[in-house]
Amino acid sequence: MTAYDDLMAYTRDTQALGQVAGRLGWDQETVMPRGAAPQRSEEMAAMETVLHARRIDPRVAGWLAEIDDSTLPAVAAAQMRHIRRSYERTSKVPAALATRLAKLTSAAQGIWAEARSADDFKAFAPTLAEVIMLKREEGQALAAGGDVYDAMLADYEPGTTAADLDAMFGAMRPVLSDLRAAVRAAPAPAQLTGTFDEGAQMKLTRQLAKTFGYDMARGRVDKAVHPFSSGSGLDVRITTRTNPADPFNCFYSTIHEVGHATYEQNIDQAYLLTPLGGGVSMGVHESQSRIYENQIGRSRAFTGWLFGQMKDAFGDFGIQDEEAFYGTVNRVNAGYIRTEADELQYNLHVLMRFDLERALMTGDLQVSDLEAAWNDRFEADFGYAVDKPSNGVLQDVHWSVGLFGYFPTYSLGNVYAGCLNEAMRAALPNLDAELAKGDTSSATTWLRDNVQTHGGLYEPRDVITRAAGQTPTEAPLLAYLKEKFSGIYKL
Amino acid sequence: MTAYDDLMAYTRDTQALGQVAGRLGWDQETVMPRGAAPQRSEEMAAMETVLHARRIDPRVAGWLAEIDDSTLPAVAAAQMRHIRRSYERTSKVPAALATRLAKLTSAAQGIWAEARSADDFKAFAPTLAEVIMLKREEGQALAAGGDVYDAMLADYEPGTTAADLDAMFGAMRPVLSDLRAAVRAAPAPAQLTGTFDEGAQMKLTRQLAKTFGYDMARGRVDKAVHPFSSGSGLDVRITTRTNPADPFNCFYSTIHEVGHATYEQNIDQAYLLTPLGGGVSMGVHESQSRIYENQIGRSRAFTGWLFGQMKDAFGDFGIQDEEAFYGTVNRVNAGYIRTEADELQYNLHVLMRFDLERALMTGDLQVSDLEAAWNDRFEADFGYAVDKPSNGVLQDVHWSVGLFGYFPTYSLGNVYAGCLNEAMRAALPNLDAELAKGDTSSATTWLRDNVQTHGGLYEPRDVITRAAGQTPTEAPLLAYLKEKFSGIYKL
Repeated sequence: MTAYDDLMAYTRDTQALGQVAGRLGWDQETVMPRGAAPQRSEEMAAMETVLHARRIDPRVAGWLAEIDDSTLPAVAAAQMRHIRRSYERTSKVPAALATRLAKLTSAAQGIWAEARSADDFKAFAPTLAEVIMLKREEGQALAAGGDVYDAMLADYEPGTTAADLDAMFGAMRPVLSDLRAAVRAAPAPAQLTGTFDEGAQMKLTRQLAKTFGYDMARGRVDKAVHPFSSGSGLDVRITTRTNPADPFNCFYSTIHEVGHATYEQNIDQAYLLTPLGGGVSMGVHESQSRIYENQIGRSRAFTGWLFGQMKDAFGDFGIQDEEAFYGTVNRVNAGYIRTEADELQYNLHVLMRFDLERALMTGDLQVSDLEAAWNDRFEADFGYAVDKPSNGVLQDVHWSVGLFGYFPTYSLGNVYAGCLNEAMRAALPNLDAELAKGDTSSATTWLRDNVQTHGGLYEPRDVITRAAGQTPTEAPLLAYLKEKFSGIYKL
Repeated sequence: MTAYDDLMAYTRDTQALGQVAGRLGWDQETVMPRGAAPQRSEEMAAMETVLHARRIDPRVAGWLAEIDDSTLPAVAAAQMRHIRRSYERTSKVPAALATRLAKLTSAAQGIWAEARSADDFKAFAPTLAEVIMLKREEGQALAAGGDVYDAMLADYEPGTTAADLDAMFGAMRPVLSDLRAAVRAAPAPAQLTGTFDEGAQMKLTRQLAKTFGYDMARGRVDKAVHPFSSGSGLDVRITTRTNPADPFNCFYSTIHEVGHATYEQNIDQAYLLTPLGGGVSMGVHESQSRIYENQIGRSRAFTGWLFGQMKDAFGDFGIQDEEAFYGTVNRVNAGYIRTEADELQYNLHVLMRFDLERALMTGDLQVSDLEAAWNDRFEADFGYAVDKPSNGVLQDVHWSVGLFGYFPTYSLGNVYAGCLNEAMRAALPNLDAELAKGDTSSATTWLRDNVQTHGGLYEPRDVITRAAGQTPTEAPLLAYLKEKFSGIYKL
């Protein structure tokens, strides 16, 4: 056994244990008896302790010192890139700080939830200030003299800097804000009304999951409060939810999670339980969920097929024809909540969070001024005022649990999806005719072969560049959105 | 922090990780996608490696050397008794032997399953001989000069010796065999016929679980191929199965598993995630499942109530009245399979396995002669011949996975249940009137307070002695069976 073999065997066990911890999370959100919660916290904590001890095990440092990456074949070198990055990240943060952060964010999540229920930002502000202070300290340790926010971003999207995002998002904001205003001034498509049997929703949503290539032999679909995808490799499970008034929430949540889940399922199985065996970054992950959900799932062609499926499942539900249904699916509604936003407005939500969290991190914005800054920015971009903190600055859990540098990956994923969609459409000229028959196989196969199969082999931006045939920019996404919504709203 | 505190904190984490491994087992049998199996093996193996490393961690030896049990309060001393026993057990078996046994039994289970499918004992015999050789070696290491079989028994039933069982089982065998013959010669009660909706079975079985005090807030009931109970403390889940022709299988499997599960749920919560927080032995565990299933669940009083529930659930199902239904529930059928046996014949199955496995272990019986020995003994005790190995020597998985010393705990559990039933009936003179109304609360409360709450606080035999008010013997069980089956069969 070489040092590389030893390290990979060790890493494989760690990956397997990480999958176990992830499965506990799935269990907790789907099947766990409610009275088990206190015991489950201890079980999760014990797993975290084991995983942490493995990350800082001195044997790893020994193997890393012994291995000369330059002598390794490409795949092994890529494995080493991930292992070294993760080990260096852990080594840079003092253990005491990591412990303080873990304790604080665990408590902060509860305090945030209570403050949101009470619609009282002040009840959360001092805790948020503490989280920001410790995250800044962590960021400084990670940046080692470089940009603190870039160091945070590297946790989720290695290779992308705040300056990259500034340029991209700066170009997007006026275009999206203007398009939003024009759309909202135009006559809107019909809204969905009535109620839709939840059992029939689950039946159709399972069919949709299969339609998008989700392998049920290596996954399952359950109901949960929040839709999510969980696990890698041979066991990738998704959840969805049902609401009698809103079947689109069920269907498009499912398609979104299937994008995440098939990414994990379609990675080359040679990488199973290795660092290359998971999606390469949050941005690339989101590109898959978004292109499944939006560029494919909300296309004129696919919604035409879905209209027929819904008529079969629910009978006449008050929408006249495919064309009207396409408008209904893509209707742009006024709203405060990011997770409920349509594909036009969604990025405006993300862009404001990116700017606000960077300002919080540099100290240009104080937590005491955050609520006002949020409300001002929202009104500027959306054209109406936030009515209460739970619809504004308190709506997302992210900051309470220390996720800074995470929000922008949502919009980066949309930008990537725009690039991939352009390239995919060029490669598959008959795609719309297939989607109109409910056949997504050309699209999902193209994404599998050009993006998903690589797992962590290439850097995130390189994955997209190779697949799209050019360096990613916001232009394809903006062109797509302008064309789509100008068509629907007859601008 | 004292050494005791450190050891207990460490042990608590180990217990929590053990619960996680157990939950993976539950997941595998109930909800896991079938394609996940290869990955799951690696996940389980990684968990086992972690648990094993914790068991042999040198810090444990240090704490054990430092702690003087005689200075500890009773509960802490009982914790230490379990911790020391488990540590000594692990230390006595050479690591190389433990590894060889783990690998062999893992392979042997597959070989056994194939041999059973092919009804070919010879295909399994060489593997079984190897398992026996290694188990004997392990037993010698554990016994350190004492009786090898006693050392094996101590893994499942500390404090009970093969000599104890010899005396007990020796007294039981002629009585049970004679009673069996008399019953089989008498006219039999009506058999259940027809089909019973599986959804309605699951509905009634969930009601039965609650009726027997199973706390659904800390548990759940799912379907699986084999009924089992899994987990301790705040998360104890059970499974059951349905067969349209045999609703009793569903109902009595559920009641049996509820006996195991409520034992775990009703242990004093001060012992949560400690060595005292689980059932104290296999025999005591089985006493709870059996007294729930048989002495309570198959009593004249309770079956009278169940008859009404089944009529409500399924309409008229061809059994005339409560009295006839009592006979049908307790009908003694000819059969080869231990797990399908009624409470009269069940122990005859176990007694023969005990004698055979002891002879295998001493070398008095060779594996090459096992099939013939099994068939001879079966015909002697049951009065008819085994038709094929899958109905005989190949029916149980136990020996393939190295479970020697485990079988007798099934009958010991029945003996304990007999003792507990006698004491419980004396303490609760109105019990039958309550059971006739479907109210098991007096019985389950008595068992909770006298047996279950103690968890691992006392030695197994002491738990029963304290609850029953006398040293356990087979007499109450035999008296109960004679009275019950003489009544039903009018002997």
